[in-house]
Amino acid sequence: MRPSARKLDELREVQIEINAMAHAEGSCLIKMGGTHVLCSASLEEKTPPFLKNTGLGWVTAEYGMLPRATHSRTKREAASGKQSGRTQEIQRLIGRSLRAGIDRAALGERQIVIDCDVIQADGGTRCASITGGWVALRLAVNRLLKAGAISSDPILDNVAAISCGIYGGQPVLDLDYAEDSVAGTDGNFVMTGKGRLIEVQMSAEGNSFAQDELMELLKLAKLGSAALVAAQNKALGGKV
Amino acid sequence: MRPSARKLDELREVQIEINAMAHAEGSCLIKMGGTHVLCSASLEEKTPPFLKNTGLGWVTAEYGMLPRATHSRTKREAASGKQSGRTQEIQRLIGRSLRAGIDRAALGERQIVIDCDVIQADGGTRCASITGGWVALRLAVNRLLKAGAISSDPILDNVAAISCGIYGGQPVLDLDYAEDSVAGTDGNFVMTGKGRLIEVQMSAEGNSFAQDELMELLKLAKLGSAALVAAQNKALGGKV
Amino acid sequence: MRPSARKLDELREVQIEINAMAHAEGSCLIKMGGTHVLCSASLEEKTPPFLKNTGLGWVTAEYGMLPRATHSRTKREAASGKQSGRTQEIQRLIGRSLRAGIDRAALGERQIVIDCDVIQADGGTRCASITGGWVALRLAVNRLLKAGAISSDPILDNVAAISCGIYGGQPVLDLDYAEDSVAGTDGNFVMTGKGRLIEVQMSAEGNSFAQDELMELLKLAKLGSAALVAAQNKALGGKV
Amino acid sequence: MRPSARKLDELREVQIEINAMAHAEGSCLIKMGGTHVLCSASLEEKTPPFLKNTGLGWVTAEYGMLPRATHSRTKREAASGKQSGRTQEIQRLIGRSLRAGIDRAALGERQIVIDCDVIQADGGTRCASITGGWVALRLAVNRLLKAGAISSDPILDNVAAISCGIYGGQPVLDLDYAEDSVAGTDGNFVMTGKGRLIEVQMSAEGNSFAQDELMELLKLAKLGSAALVAAQNKALGGKV
Amino acid sequence: MRPSARKLDELREVQIEINAMAHAEGSCLIKMGGTHVLCSASLEEKTPPFLKNTGLGWVTAEYGMLPRATHSRTKREAASGKQSGRTQEIQRLIGRSLRAGIDRAALGERQIVIDCDVIQADGGTRCASITGGWVALRLAVNRLLKAGAISSDPILDNVAAISCGIYGGQPVLDLDYAEDSVAGTDGNFVMTGKGRLIEVQMSAEGNSFAQDELMELLKLAKLGSAALVAAQNKALGGKV
Amino acid sequence: MRPSARKLDELREVQIEINAMAHAEGSCLIKMGGTHVLCSASLEEKTPPFLKNTGLGWVTAEYGMLPRATHSRTKREAASGKQSGRTQEIQRLIGRSLRAGIDRAALGERQIVIDCDVIQADGGTRCASITGGWVALRLAVNRLLKAGAISSDPILDNVAAISCGIYGGQPVLDLDYAEDSVAGTDGNFVMTGKGRLIEVQMSAEGNSFAQDELMELLKLAKLGSAALVAAQNKALGGKV
Repeated sequence: MRPSARKLDELREVQIEINAMAHAEGSCLIKMGGTHVLCSASLEEKTPPFLKNTGLGWVTAEYGMLPRATHSRTKREAASGKQSGRTQEIQRLIGRSLRAGIDRAALGERQIVIDCDVIQADGGTRCASITGGWVALRLAVNRLLKAGAISSDPILDNVAAISCGIYGGQPVLDLDYAEDSVAGTDGNFVMTGKGRLIEVQMSAEGNSFAQDELMELLKLAKLGSAALVAAQNKALGGKV
Repeated sequence: MRPSARKLDELREVQIEINAMAHAEGSCLIKMGGTHVLCSASLEEKTPPFLKNTGLGWVTAEYGMLPRATHSRTKREAASGKQSGRTQEIQRLIGRSLRAGIDRAALGERQIVIDCDVIQADGGTRCASITGGWVALRLAVNRLLKAGAISSDPILDNVAAISCGIYGGQPVLDLDYAEDSVAGTDGNFVMTGKGRLIEVQMSAEGNSFAQDELMELLKLAKLGSAALVAAQNKALGGKV
Repeated sequence: MRPSARKLDELREVQIEINAMAHAEGSCLIKMGGTHVLCSASLEEKTPPFLKNTGLGWVTAEYGMLPRATHSRTKREAASGKQSGRTQEIQRLIGRSLRAGIDRAALGERQIVIDCDVIQADGGTRCASITGGWVALRLAVNRLLKAGAISSDPILDNVAAISCGIYGGQPVLDLDYAEDSVAGTDGNFVMTGKGRLIEVQMSAEGNSFAQDELMELLKLAKLGSAALVAAQNKALGGKV
Repeated sequence: MRPSARKLDELREVQIEINAMAHAEGSCLIKMGGTHVLCSASLEEKTPPFLKNTGLGWVTAEYGMLPRATHSRTKREAASGKQSGRTQEIQRLIGRSLRAGIDRAALGERQIVIDCDVIQADGGTRCASITGGWVALRLAVNRLLKAGAISSDPILDNVAAISCGIYGGQPVLDLDYAEDSVAGTDGNFVMTGKGRLIEVQMSAEGNSFAQDELMELLKLAKLGSAALVAAQNKALGGKV
Repeated sequence: MRPSARKLDELREVQIEINAMAHAEGSCLIKMGGTHVLCSASLEEKTPPFLKNTGLGWVTAEYGMLPRATHSRTKREAASGKQSGRTQEIQRLIGRSLRAGIDRAALGERQIVIDCDVIQADGGTRCASITGGWVALRLAVNRLLKAGAISSDPILDNVAAISCGIYGGQPVLDLDYAEDSVAGTDGNFVMTGKGRLIEVQMSAEGNSFAQDELMELLKLAKLGSAALVAAQNKALGGKV
Repeated sequence: MRPSARKLDELREVQIEINAMAHAEGSCLIKMGGTHVLCSASLEEKTPPFLKNTGLGWVTAEYGMLPRATHSRTKREAASGKQSGRTQEIQRLIGRSLRAGIDRAALGERQIVIDCDVIQADGGTRCASITGGWVALRLAVNRLLKAGAISSDPILDNVAAISCGIYGGQPVLDLDYAEDSVAGTDGNFVMTGKGRLIEVQMSAEGNSFAQDELMELLKLAKLGSAALVAAQNKALGGKV
């Protein structure tokens, strides 16, 4: 029995509210149960220096968490003077995942910065950030297309992410904090709208795992990812 | 004519939604027109070292802004490795203001940390942080009282803050960003529920100002502050 | 009775020795009783980047304190790797105050950096820094005028600052450390030579204060400021 | 054809020289072709604070690279004042991987710090660090066993890591820099001596990949990992 | 001919004004011509952790320079967030030199921190800091002796420092900035009151030098050091 | 009797293995007994900004130490976020020493960065770094000469460094850690191939020393330096 009484392959309730931040070129508030993340896309009309004169664009991401998004207060990274290794690992993952879903030549020499800020945390914040970050990116690119700044759509496919893990000896989908904090093996799968893989990150801090378990988790991830892609498209209305 | 078509002494619409963050001991989302701030109070059962064995408690504050709370993206302070002078100035002001409204002996040797994070900015973020921060503080103290951890209420009075300034040659209340960015003289008034002063901060970067102007702004601030105190009390229901 | 036996409206002895630093374009050593601050003005023939091609100049300030300027040794900020919030707040105030007394178009595209370093501290260091910083600025601008680098005087008026507070229930002028450390309400007034206001910063950490008290302190501040302006002009001889 | 003319499933030449650092409790120099990493294990007779009085030990890792380990000089992280996100991601992976192969209760309340410093880089430095780091850990634990400080062996199994990727459309084992810098999909597999999985990290920055490709890479990884485990055991002689 | 028209073996005018800082346990303002350094000694009644329970005391030093002590403004180290290599090298030298003149067991488990802040620079600031720092140390130790906190004098001898160099092909004593900035070879000699050596630091950035030149500079240094020791004793009156 | 049973004027065994790092323009591994340092020279085809358009080149150095190069583990400087004062002092010494042996006009507007990383430490790491750093520099310059990038050899002479000290009351050459950690007086001498001096750094933390002792140590240093220069030339074969 899962703490939330969900079935093994059941996602938490997903809500995606678009245009949640007035100033951003694209934004949404994504809720996966008790995990809430504000995602914004900021368009900059120049690339980072290493891409100058290559004709290629760039998508990058930054991740943060409000100090009291968590059960007990977490020290503010701005006050402690540096981003933790965990934060850096997560924002690198978000950026890499979103870049894998975009044709950087079609984007042209501009940069889109995705900011994912966790307002409330209950497990799976990096996956929610990727899924919501893609919606913000989609909206910012729509604006570029509408304005005629680019002629063909650089977005190749939806990108969504979901966590899976072995909880109580059983493979489960979309771990919340109560599950995540005790699962021996868990991981994150980033997938495209067509069900292809972008990132697989499975870790066993406590117990090693077998190839069969990896396969079962992958099966769950496909289910979850398809549902998230549907939620993305529904939130965007006819806007994709 | 103000850009927002408001009257000279008219506040923006004020909304205070309490318990906006699931994990905090007290929290609210305060909206002053387009300025939205998430405020949380985190209770820690020990004081900072300099108060050990004094019997006194402490209230402190931290302030942040999401990178895309603003018209164009602001660099994330956690990434740049330090809090700006502006951020430090604001969070010192919030902490000082809220401490002035509390009896630290009645609070006892514990600390309450107020986090004010600006989700969306349209001028007056430090004032909204103080007004909302006080609501979060009130809720956290209510919890202490209810739990019997303290026997008498350490909160002496409401604390609220409002900006005023000279815009287009006229004294105006509650400047939004369009006004704030051009006002030659502006400032912030922090006041108690009874209308006494806690902080007065008036600045003239462009033009010096006369004592009479200070008096007129103070009159506006009293009006605004009284309305904010009423909004605090209404949001808290019978909970104060 | 004040610890120094001064009258309620009595300044400490003010001494301003100009040209105290051989290399600076303008400098002075200002002493307000036991508070001694070395102030220098450094002229740079370019503005900060955000003013490029605007025709406007800039005045900025930095503040520091020798580790043993204080009763017990204060940690050296260069060693601890950052400036405290207090230091940043003070240097922002000094810069803002001095800019309010200058016509930046008349200054032209150059920057003057005011360094205020506290050699010995006995309360009121930020006010002494502003009063002395203006003298250093005046001397550096005189040099520009004499050299023909600018044709009209960009300095609009003197700028001086003084602290006031409620000590032992009475409004007093120019608090020293013994008063400052116990005063419930105190603040700083920055004024022009003509008695107009540039900054008002009143704070009540312990007790809120009434509008009447603000008015009484403002009255004292005018007296003090006028005396400081006279001391500035006397120190400068016929040089203003 | 691979740049190195290796077969698709062929490892680079592996050399592990134990006791390469005179002062460490365990150490080795591991060479995977042109990638050379010095690995040391430092034993500390206390755990990090969060494990105090739990009876559990800890294994952690730090990773570094000499500035001229790479084709062109990389800025020294000690000089730039922080570890890059890449460095932090790698050292977190090494620590997590090695912890998964140890019984922390059997280790007892002590910490072993694994330092992996890349002397020369030609792709696959994080995998070489894990494989060599385990040898250093094994030697340090041997010393504890020999000294009677612990009674049962806390090491559960060998831990080794190998990279795989899609190069020129073909799945290949143990990518060198020439392959790694152009492969669209690649990843790292950390495995135990018995062939179970500890970490799977597959990334597609350029192209998404199919589940079948993941399976093929996993097959290669098993081959490579088995060979590395053999090399570890051979280097340790009868010492395991 | 030296720029200052001094003879080859002639010191600049030396002035040492004791008790220049009201709050310090010992202090002086030392002037070597245009080089002015404020030196203070701060007594702390505990040693650094590494000396706990050894019965030994410690003397350490910190060095700083006001931004406009120099011909053109130097960036403030507190603002740039770290002390330069030069600053660290100098303060390590001052601390090491003063420790060599003290019996740390006689001092007992306490620490004296010497702060040397350059108010105005014209070459030789590190030597002036050592010579003045010793005077501040002497005064702080006198206070300990007078208070009966220690029974025997821990100061073994005077410590003074002087620079020498090859200028225009000739060995000269006490280089000022005009000489120092062009001298191919120069260095600093720290000596005791009895003429024994504590530190010798000779550097040739431009030209290597011969052993004979080292001997000649050493001869000059002895002359200079003796004069500085006399100046120290004179400034201290009968207080040594 | 020395701990290593060496004679008073006996160097430790010196080994210099050139081309120890595949990617560097010049490199060596130098071993002085148990002290092992990897030295590399990285050629950059531009000078630092302050030399732009002067026609002069630059040689600079960075120094580091693997955390477990030492008896007990030293904190990694990259992790603690800054280089220690000791590190900065050493790398400034290495850079200054190597620049003294080069004609910067003949080098032309390019920079050579020498990295010295201590793999294993047993005293004398800064001297080994200079001696080995010069070999790396020589090899990088050889490459420039061979490529015709420069027409005349900018290297004026060999540069080598050796430590000496008073151990057990006797002057000894090339102190190892066991001697260095107890010697009251020790120092480093940097010399040219012709026996001229570049740097002399003698320190007495414990005891002051006499001029005669300086002379005796200098005599030893000459012997040691000559042997090191011979070892440099032998390692380079006919390549100098």
